[in-house]
Amino acid sequence: MTSLRSLLAGAAALALGASLPAQAPDRAREAAFDAQIDPAEQMRWLKELASGPNHVGSPHDKANAEMILRLFRSWGWDARIETFQVLYPTPLSTTVELVGPTRVKLGGQEPPVAADDTSAVKGALPPYVAYQGDGDVTADVVYVNYGMPEDYKALERRGVDVRGKIVVARYGVGWRGLKPLLAQWHGAAGCIIYSDPHEDGYAKGDVYPKGGMRPDFAVQRGSVMDMPIYPGDPLTPDVGATADAKRLTRAQATTILKIPALPMSYGDASKILARLAGPEAPDGWQGSLPFRYHTGGDGTVKLHLAVKSDWSLKPVYDVIATMKGATLPDEWVVRGNHHDGWVMGAADPLSGNVAMLAEAKALGALAKQGWRPKRTLVYASWDGEEPALLGSTEWAEAHAAELKAKAVLYINSDSSGRGIMEASGSHEYQHLVNEAAADVRDPETGVPMVQRQRAKLQVEALTEGGRLSPAQTAAADKGADVPLAALGSGSDFTAYLQHLGLPALDFGFSGESQSGGVYHSLYDSFHHYTTFDDPGLKYSAALAKLAGRVVMRVADADTPATRYGDFADTVASYLDEVKKLAETRRTGDERLGQLIQADAFRIAGDPLKPVSAPVAEAPTPRFDFGPLEKAVARLRRSATAFDESYANRGVRLAPERRQRLNAALRDIDQLLLDPRGLPGRPWFRHMIYAPGRLTGYGAKTLPGVREAIEDRRFDDARDYIGRTAAVLDAYAARLDQARGVLEGRGS
Amino acid sequence: MTSLRSLLAGAAALALGASLPAQAPDRAREAAFDAQIDPAEQMRWLKELASGPNHVGSPHDKANAEMILRLFRSWGWDARIETFQVLYPTPLSTTVELVGPTRVKLGGQEPPVAADDTSAVKGALPPYVAYQGDGDVTADVVYVNYGMPEDYKALERRGVDVRGKIVVARYGVGWRGLKPLLAQWHGAAGCIIYSDPHEDGYAKGDVYPKGGMRPDFAVQRGSVMDMPIYPGDPLTPDVGATADAKRLTRAQATTILKIPALPMSYGDASKILARLAGPEAPDGWQGSLPFRYHTGGDGTVKLHLAVKSDWSLKPVYDVIATMKGATLPDEWVVRGNHHDGWVMGAADPLSGNVAMLAEAKALGALAKQGWRPKRTLVYASWDGEEPALLGSTEWAEAHAAELKAKAVLYINSDSSGRGIMEASGSHEYQHLVNEAAADVRDPETGVPMVQRQRAKLQVEALTEGGRLSPAQTAAADKGADVPLAALGSGSDFTAYLQHLGLPALDFGFSGESQSGGVYHSLYDSFHHYTTFDDPGLKYSAALAKLAGRVVMRVADADTPATRYGDFADTVASYLDEVKKLAETRRTGDERLGQLIQADAFRIAGDPLKPVSAPVAEAPTPRFDFGPLEKAVARLRRSATAFDESYANRGVRLAPERRQRLNAALRDIDQLLLDPRGLPGRPWFRHMIYAPGRLTGYGAKTLPGVREAIEDRRFDDARDYIGRTAAVLDAYAARLDQARGVLEGRGS
Repeated sequence: MTSLRSLLAGAAALALGASLPAQAPDRAREAAFDAQIDPAEQMRWLKELASGPNHVGSPHDKANAEMILRLFRSWGWDARIETFQVLYPTPLSTTVELVGPTRVKLGGQEPPVAADDTSAVKGALPPYVAYQGDGDVTADVVYVNYGMPEDYKALERRGVDVRGKIVVARYGVGWRGLKPLLAQWHGAAGCIIYSDPHEDGYAKGDVYPKGGMRPDFAVQRGSVMDMPIYPGDPLTPDVGATADAKRLTRAQATTILKIPALPMSYGDASKILARLAGPEAPDGWQGSLPFRYHTGGDGTVKLHLAVKSDWSLKPVYDVIATMKGATLPDEWVVRGNHHDGWVMGAADPLSGNVAMLAEAKALGALAKQGWRPKRTLVYASWDGEEPALLGSTEWAEAHAAELKAKAVLYINSDSSGRGIMEASGSHEYQHLVNEAAADVRDPETGVPMVQRQRAKLQVEALTEGGRLSPAQTAAADKGADVPLAALGSGSDFTAYLQHLGLPALDFGFSGESQSGGVYHSLYDSFHHYTTFDDPGLKYSAALAKLAGRVVMRVADADTPATRYGDFADTVASYLDEVKKLAETRRTGDERLGQLIQADAFRIAGDPLKPVSAPVAEAPTPRFDFGPLEKAVARLRRSATAFDESYANRGVRLAPERRQRLNAALRDIDQLLLDPRGLPGRPWFRHMIYAPGRLTGYGAKTLPGVREAIEDRRFDDARDYIGRTAAVLDAYAARLDQARGVLEGRGS
Repeated sequence: MTSLRSLLAGAAALALGASLPAQAPDRAREAAFDAQIDPAEQMRWLKELASGPNHVGSPHDKANAEMILRLFRSWGWDARIETFQVLYPTPLSTTVELVGPTRVKLGGQEPPVAADDTSAVKGALPPYVAYQGDGDVTADVVYVNYGMPEDYKALERRGVDVRGKIVVARYGVGWRGLKPLLAQWHGAAGCIIYSDPHEDGYAKGDVYPKGGMRPDFAVQRGSVMDMPIYPGDPLTPDVGATADAKRLTRAQATTILKIPALPMSYGDASKILARLAGPEAPDGWQGSLPFRYHTGGDGTVKLHLAVKSDWSLKPVYDVIATMKGATLPDEWVVRGNHHDGWVMGAADPLSGNVAMLAEAKALGALAKQGWRPKRTLVYASWDGEEPALLGSTEWAEAHAAELKAKAVLYINSDSSGRGIMEASGSHEYQHLVNEAAADVRDPETGVPMVQRQRAKLQVEALTEGGRLSPAQTAAADKGADVPLAALGSGSDFTAYLQHLGLPALDFGFSGESQSGGVYHSLYDSFHHYTTFDDPGLKYSAALAKLAGRVVMRVADADTPATRYGDFADTVASYLDEVKKLAETRRTGDERLGQLIQADAFRIAGDPLKPVSAPVAEAPTPRFDFGPLEKAVARLRRSATAFDESYANRGVRLAPERRQRLNAALRDIDQLLLDPRGLPGRPWFRHMIYAPGRLTGYGAKTLPGVREAIEDRRFDDARDYIGRTAAVLDAYAARLDQARGVLEGRGS
């Protein structure tokens, strides 16, 4: 499900921090691990796993789970399949047709492409989006650009009303699922989401099969469940969807949409859009189809949209493999990647899954040679990620108590590609990730991965300097650690990080592959992946070396391989952003009020293309950030003091104190949860990282405060300044306590 | 010829300056003037003038000159036609055809459009560009994006060579004439320039005749003479092209290109571009045609391009009308607008010309009622602007001595449109222009024009704040004067400002009209203009009221209606820009060297799409801007002191001292010329304003210094720091002298 994560979404890094006290990595063992990684074998696994449609409930999805189970077992892992019963709708019928001004049938299955042999394999679901509402509507059409809140404001200013109409939104900017949700909020009767060639078609590169980008007949499937409320089975929030779980009714489930929606190719969408009348689309709404876009909404075009789904429960098959830790068996390092796709799923998710399998095979081989990790390893190949993070969420909810008591870190991957290493996650692991990335060579250039990351930032700083964050600039200019991006959602780390409060990491490569062009279509295939994305699976092999190293270093460290100053600095940079946001909003609101008062929008506007003035909203007040500023300052002091003490004393620690230090730090991230969760979405409890309510995948940091300011919930903002300060204070206090252990104080 | 001038290219303005000492405008007379302005009459003139092709040498061009002459005379002006004989090539044959991989005939005349009756009128020249070289070539094709210097660098980094090939450049970014010139410099054999729908086609609005933007069959004609060297007749630089003028041979004329070139519609261009192979075009090169753009250059596509012109001399007919001044007859206010077009020329230039005629009629009526301007008015309807500013330049050169002795200001207009008032020019007139714009009401909104300008800046500041200059921000936020943009070239003010050193102003309206969509095509017609650009010619009437007011206020002022602090502040802001440019270049060069050294471009780059590192060029040194800083500081002191003294003493000045003050200030702008001119182009002598060598129309301020830094001619930069300081010192000394007159000192 992972979409492109931007290298440019970073956070502050310590230019030079204390060194990690965890013992030096065992380079001989890591070399032995690397020797087991065989891209040719990964190619064979990928070819088999991607040989048929493997969506939830398909025969090949089950076969893949069984194949993965067999492989784990063959490598000596203790493996089993855990099954959950989840509400997952599959389409019984999908209808979309122009009925006015002329009749044109649209939609249906994507056609086979001669160069791509799996594109002719039967059994794929037709293009659809999961968890939309059943319905049958015929209505006027309005083009809503990306279908984001500001797009609806732009329509209102032009007098275009979407109530009772079918909106056509293009993919991009916001997460897919928000488009029909916002359409529904604005009173629309239905929603089409199409792939404009501007985003991932010919405007970005040659189209498949000549190149890798989206041709005019490829459709992006996907989930439109309201996952920013809660992911996983809509009927079993907070608990595992076991056979005997207590379930909501479908009507009670708040994450299922009410209106029908379908995805569409740009070949089909152009037949609708080219016919729209009404005002010309506002600046910035023009995509790359060869005509002027209009908003429609004047009755010229009528569309018939009907979707009916099979709403029965379906099984998801999580493959769970464990290797018991030798000395700290009750501390778990969890590593996951899903195995279900929308169709063949070669890039998404199998490119990451075969990397994870390669790690498991190599670890199994090390174990056969006598090695045992200190901590227990849990490798999970999730099912049902695509519809709603089903497999990972249900497993997390089913095993919540044990995970909260034992898990030290969750490490994720998903679809990967070719190019630059991208790492996101909990910032106390930032330095460990940089160290690991310094020890794995980039397959194309032969330099350490972190050096390539830095060169990329350097070239970007030269050509488009202003777009780098201060931490990225420090990495580019001063050789500081390359910052981790913040995690939002969009893959299986979500329940572990956002709901359980485990630290999490996510790895992948991107920038040079073209899997975005066939994302969630029939053509995300072995042929596409090995031709346009990662020929020879060199990067899938590199991903195994990187993630495997992190797994081993965390699992084998006597005491945590963490550096808390990096986390503290990053949080401080988030607070700076939020304060700047508040001030920008406040002065902007003031200025807007003055311009409305002065009638400046009418005076400046073109009366032949009337656009009313923006509606003034409740003006942003000045906030008292004092409690949060104090908490961040305390966090920085505590983190710096701990890191220094740890660097000096950490490696020479007596076993009994090691144990107490581990105990003090194992669940420190869980202190970042507030049991009340975020406003309106209590499932999301993390006060530092969250998926945005209106970004879907994209991270919002300090979300309780930031989103409240953005959404003008000013009382919430004040409340969450306090709540966020409180979790940071608890975190700092725990660091102080851990430093007491280091320094021989305390009980 | 004027293309869109950006509101965003501004300069620093005094937030609050001294008031102008010139006597208050005679509002009763201005009301009487306004009462004569009749948009319906302007419509009739426009319809007649735009009823047939009126390019240089066409029968209708001559008929238009004669009609304009009759009109001036009928209003009581002393009018005549002055004729020059100029080298102006017209096409005998234009051939362009694909010959490989398949044969497709391209080019030829634009087709008639049913809704537009003049589009069926015969006699138009076929689409071509003037002053290209005759030639007949068949060659491989390379797409060069906008054909600007950085585009050639990007091609070189991708290993694509244009030598001996035909380049296809899209219109935009740089001036048309630079595209074949740069192609020639890089060894290309020919050049096609086409209108991509991204710039002025369906990506910008509905296309003609449904809307006003460029359809796939409309072609932009234009000049490709190397006018940044010198405009006007290529055979008679510096002198008027009178019948007996001494002429260069065609081979001696440095402004005529050597290679053949033709303009093209996007309908035709897509047939070439869609077939190109070779590397995918770099980021930012993709236009709005519905396929991925490639660079070509690999032999897949072959084009045949052949042009042959009639290089005989042709007549240009300038209509010159004068109204003698009552008390200062030897001080001239010159007002001009050209009358020749590329085809029907309704927007360009006739929309401005009918405004000028309306002024002349109204001034004639005032004269019949007994008024006489204090200074002499010279109204000029120029011919031959489109090919090379022929009429205005030859007249300026023919009358150079008299103009330098008498002219106090040149006021220009050209194609105009609907929307926001745009004013450019010499900054000592900035306050006068703002005062005039406060006294004319915007036709659409009923508010004073300057209020609408300010509202537009306010709305832009809110939505895209960072793009406004400090002076524009001051106008938007603090009600300071709206800054004048700097004049480059592209219309008839050029010879007067850049060569003779007269102060100049240029007026027009834009932002809401769509004449850009048919610019220089057959469809720049009465139908288009009155449908999509300025229905009812309300803005053409408003232009007459604005320009007429400025003419009257300057002509009737006892002493100059100028404020020198505005000029000084603007020059100071230019110096800030140039210093920032030098520093950005210096640090960028240093950083680039480090990255090349570190092999960062290879490491960061995609080896499957190889792009070599940029070539390091001579690094920008630190410059000693001291002399220029001192001169600017002195200028500011002298200007402020003069303005204050003038505000206090100016209106009460005794007649003898008025005369001495006028004498001291009349030619002060000529002190800004350096007789050596700019490096490599001595015709351009102004040290503050110039058209860029590589922008064509766009202004470069402090050009001797700024362009030398940009072009890495560092010795020139040092030389012109001194030369520019010297002209500013002379200007400041003259202000001191004029203040001496005000204050009763001096001889």
